[in-house]
Amino acid sequence: MGRILCAGLGPGDPDLISVRADRAIRSARHVAYFRKAGRAGQARRIVEGMLAEGVTEHAMEYPVTTEIPFDSPDYIRLLADFYDDWTLRLEALAQSGAEVVVLCEGDPFFYGSFMHLYTRLKDRVPVEVIPGIPGMVGCWHASGLPVTWGDDVLSVLMGTLPEAEMVSHMRGADALAIMKTGRNLPKVRRALEAAGRLDQAWLIERGTMPDQRIARLAEVEAADCPYFAIVLVHGQGRRPVSGGPE
Amino acid sequence: MGRILCAGLGPGDPDLISVRADRAIRSARHVAYFRKAGRAGQARRIVEGMLAEGVTEHAMEYPVTTEIPFDSPDYIRLLADFYDDWTLRLEALAQSGAEVVVLCEGDPFFYGSFMHLYTRLKDRVPVEVIPGIPGMVGCWHASGLPVTWGDDVLSVLMGTLPEAEMVSHMRGADALAIMKTGRNLPKVRRALEAAGRLDQAWLIERGTMPDQRIARLAEVEAADCPYFAIVLVHGQGRRPVSGGPE
Repeated sequence: MGRILCAGLGPGDPDLISVRADRAIRSARHVAYFRKAGRAGQARRIVEGMLAEGVTEHAMEYPVTTEIPFDSPDYIRLLADFYDDWTLRLEALAQSGAEVVVLCEGDPFFYGSFMHLYTRLKDRVPVEVIPGIPGMVGCWHASGLPVTWGDDVLSVLMGTLPEAEMVSHMRGADALAIMKTGRNLPKVRRALEAAGRLDQAWLIERGTMPDQRIARLAEVEAADCPYFAIVLVHGQGRRPVSGGPE
Repeated sequence: MGRILCAGLGPGDPDLISVRADRAIRSARHVAYFRKAGRAGQARRIVEGMLAEGVTEHAMEYPVTTEIPFDSPDYIRLLADFYDDWTLRLEALAQSGAEVVVLCEGDPFFYGSFMHLYTRLKDRVPVEVIPGIPGMVGCWHASGLPVTWGDDVLSVLMGTLPEAEMVSHMRGADALAIMKTGRNLPKVRRALEAAGRLDQAWLIERGTMPDQRIARLAEVEAADCPYFAIVLVHGQGRRPVSGGPE
């Protein structure tokens, strides 16, 4: 019996992959990774130059990404079939004795696509998951500023949330990380403005990668926002300073 | 001119340190780490066996931890003086040409003590920070379950927060990570109960370490909770399943 080993790749810089995941990736005979059809795929790009010669690559291409609404019955059916299909293929590989290293950006258990394979596979074949540095951690490092201090509350929000709900969380938390921005950016911006947080917000793309970009959200054109950019608001909590409580 | 290089150690398993931090730690001539006076220190323990022969160790011992309230003037003054003092010492080392690797558990920019040195040092000597896997990520991996799905909101809370504020956040978020539990555990438990989330809560200690412990919070004695244990509530958000929207 082989197994499925999911390696968290972290935020993008291959040097930020864990020692354990690095070892697994370099010695893999089979690797699998998600990607949009027709694209190289970000996970595959991160490990460029790390794979052994003769490795077998399994590109798991999403049947749909942003073409139809993520909450429509068609989207749900297409994605469920896609995960069911790859569950069978990976299970067959493991049953044949292969170890398949599944490459996942960030941390696999934090909003990762692998979770859908994990829940399907875990009672059928051995599955191990290696944690990774979440993408949002790379983004706050790209900003050069700590994200949370003292008692700060950090809330992680998706750009797909209803606007009113977003505003309420933005008002209640000290630090914010907002993911899945892309076409939701105008909504995210309105919500931040309504919560009085827009002037503290940064838009960060590809944090820790050579082409990382960081800009004040208020100064970014809405059209100019890739799906995977993260909006960040830093906490300003308690810190001991000589001569005063703040 | 030398520099200060802060290495995020991740959740505890040395194999989960990033490739870059691993390299920095193994080649360091000077390492520094925080610890409670009289203790070995968790950061130092994580790198046991990794340090080069002849390395100079700088143990930065907190003048106080939980002996007096963290918001009292005495605590604030003692901590501010402590950070000021170590800023001068590390600055002098860097000025003399040394590179000092500061070891920090988890991710240094996520509620880490190094942030207090970072803000003091960054305009005086070169400082670089290597991200790490936050401790809470290690805890959800220890639980063997993904923490957030679909549009789930994750809120990270400190056990030191006022109870009513904690309840409000616990009601509003889907997934929860509550840190700095320890003597705040009875309050955390009451707040979870008031928010209707106690039966979903796990108490996790030393996630990813050989002696990790995971238990249902409702079944743990309040007296039996170390300061660094994390309480976790998993999100139950959207996931595509054949034949239904959930």
